Amino acid sequence: MTKPPWSLVVVGSVALDDVDGPFGQRPDILGGSASYCSVAASFFAAGSIKLVAVVGDDFPEAHVELLTSRGIDTAGLERSPGKTFRWAGRYADDLVTRKTLDTQLGVFAGFQPRLGEAHVGCELVFLGNIDPVLQMSVLEQVRQPTLVACDTMNFWISGKPDDLRRMLSRVDVLVINDEEARELAGVHNLVKAARAIRALGPRGVVVKRGDSGALLFHEHGVFAAPAYPLEDVRDPTGAGDTFAGGFMGYLARARDISPAAIKRAMIAGSVMASFCVEDFSLDRLRRLEMHEVVDRFRAFAELTNYEAIHL
Amino acid sequence: MTKPPWSLVVVGSVALDDVDGPFGQRPDILGGSASYCSVAASFFAAGSIKLVAVVGDDFPEAHVELLTSRGIDTAGLERSPGKTFRWAGRYADDLVTRKTLDTQLGVFAGFQPRLGEAHVGCELVFLGNIDPVLQMSVLEQVRQPTLVACDTMNFWISGKPDDLRRMLSRVDVLVINDEEARELAGVHNLVKAARAIRALGPRGVVVKRGDSGALLFHEHGVFAAPAYPLEDVRDPTGAGDTFAGGFMGYLARARDISPAAIKRAMIAGSVMASFCVEDFSLDRLRRLEMHEVVDRFRAFAELTNYEAIHL
Repeated sequence: MTKPPWSLVVVGSVALDDVDGPFGQRPDILGGSASYCSVAASFFAAGSIKLVAVVGDDFPEAHVELLTSRGIDTAGLERSPGKTFRWAGRYADDLVTRKTLDTQLGVFAGFQPRLGEAHVGCELVFLGNIDPVLQMSVLEQVRQPTLVACDTMNFWISGKPDDLRRMLSRVDVLVINDEEARELAGVHNLVKAARAIRALGPRGVVVKRGDSGALLFHEHGVFAAPAYPLEDVRDPTGAGDTFAGGFMGYLARARDISPAAIKRAMIAGSVMASFCVEDFSLDRLRRLEMHEVVDRFRAFAELTNYEAIHL
Repeated sequence: MTKPPWSLVVVGSVALDDVDGPFGQRPDILGGSASYCSVAASFFAAGSIKLVAVVGDDFPEAHVELLTSRGIDTAGLERSPGKTFRWAGRYADDLVTRKTLDTQLGVFAGFQPRLGEAHVGCELVFLGNIDPVLQMSVLEQVRQPTLVACDTMNFWISGKPDDLRRMLSRVDVLVINDEEARELAGVHNLVKAARAIRALGPRGVVVKRGDSGALLFHEHGVFAAPAYPLEDVRDPTGAGDTFAGGFMGYLARARDISPAAIKRAMIAGSVMASFCVEDFSLDRLRRLEMHEVVDRFRAFAELTNYEAIHL
């Protein structure tokens, strides 16, 4: 009999987004790093994902139902009086360049992640790109996780560099954008940047490069997961968090953090991200079926596999 | 006994470059699409590469000796009175952004490729990014090549669109930069751009994406070759032409243009391009040894291989 997946606690933001781009405007849609990450992870580790976040009293119940319908434990989703965290952004026609139009912290401003008994014993921990002081407070609450991964962003790299470094010293894997990796390390070359970041603590660094795929730098060298070449990209919001969710969810299912499992998790992350961008918000993940996930794993294998070369 | 490689004729530019960038200035260095391409190809198909190009009476004999030392047949390298084609460019600190400072056609302005008996029977033809009218004149001279590949550039896409389309209708594989593919097809999405280009004639389109690798679009779908993550990049000039050389040279050695062989050729192109950028001009290729090539093929396999994923 197959063993149940490891449990995964995801701490981050649950948000309401206003997204504008070449495929139209969508106001008040579900967003946030913890939403994307936990739903993506649920495809591999259904019933083992626990979400810790905060929303305001304006947060639609339908969004919570999406999470619970995916088997995500939302006992750690706090409801506070006030407004849910909001992000508004606009994409250029290339669907890469984006401008943040507005950020309203709302109830997130006073967020203090409080982990319950169900959370502190989780084998896997993912910390979305929230304040490194809050990320650290989560690490002080969990018991003996097998693997801790986190994300961060420019705002904290420049705003709280010391807190960020303290937190990174206790993390196993950093999952980060290429531009943020460069900023954090202070060097443009990604090989050098990853080495500098690994010297801060994380033994693995995953550099997300949008439609150029993702690179894993770890003690066994480097691994490249391609991005699937898609014909119809509608909204790239959340692709990085969805990658992280596929990555962590796969490790939970595999119950394995060996270098070989982490490489396969890179592909799982890329597979889930390739679906995320096909529609706004979590709409593609909402209607995604497992046979489609299996098919895209096969498509990824065809995308990169070639016969051995003998010279 | 192993059969000898197929013969490959490379028609393009042989140039003198002035390159400026974060690693210093290099005046009067060997450049040109046909130089990079033929030298890269020679690692796989030594003794089977024939170059057709023109240089002026100012062209240093040492550069010709580099080509002949690699076993390249330079009988088709015309020497005309006047100055060799010159290109001058400057790279930004990211080693991606570049500015063309000067282009002097010199003897290239009056170039008319004249193929000899040794050239017209070649199994493989590569046309560097010269005037599509000249590319077409080569196609009218060759007999029954097994595969014809070509490159082109923005200058011809906007300047001679009709000649370019006529030429493309007779080509098997187009090897092109991502931005040029978008311009040629008039669409940003690369999947859509490749489909539009394939409708013009080429049954394979190779889209070169710099340090994001290269994509092959063909009748069997899509294949992604990563770029090797390098720590020390000094000069990206000629990387695309070196990719094309590795690609064509590998096909010559394999004597095979099946989809499986073309995928392996994509890796061969990426391997050779990864060396090219490590030094100025052809300096890295000049001192490159076959065991290093074999090692990097192994590194590429490690970069992309992962165990089969069972869900």
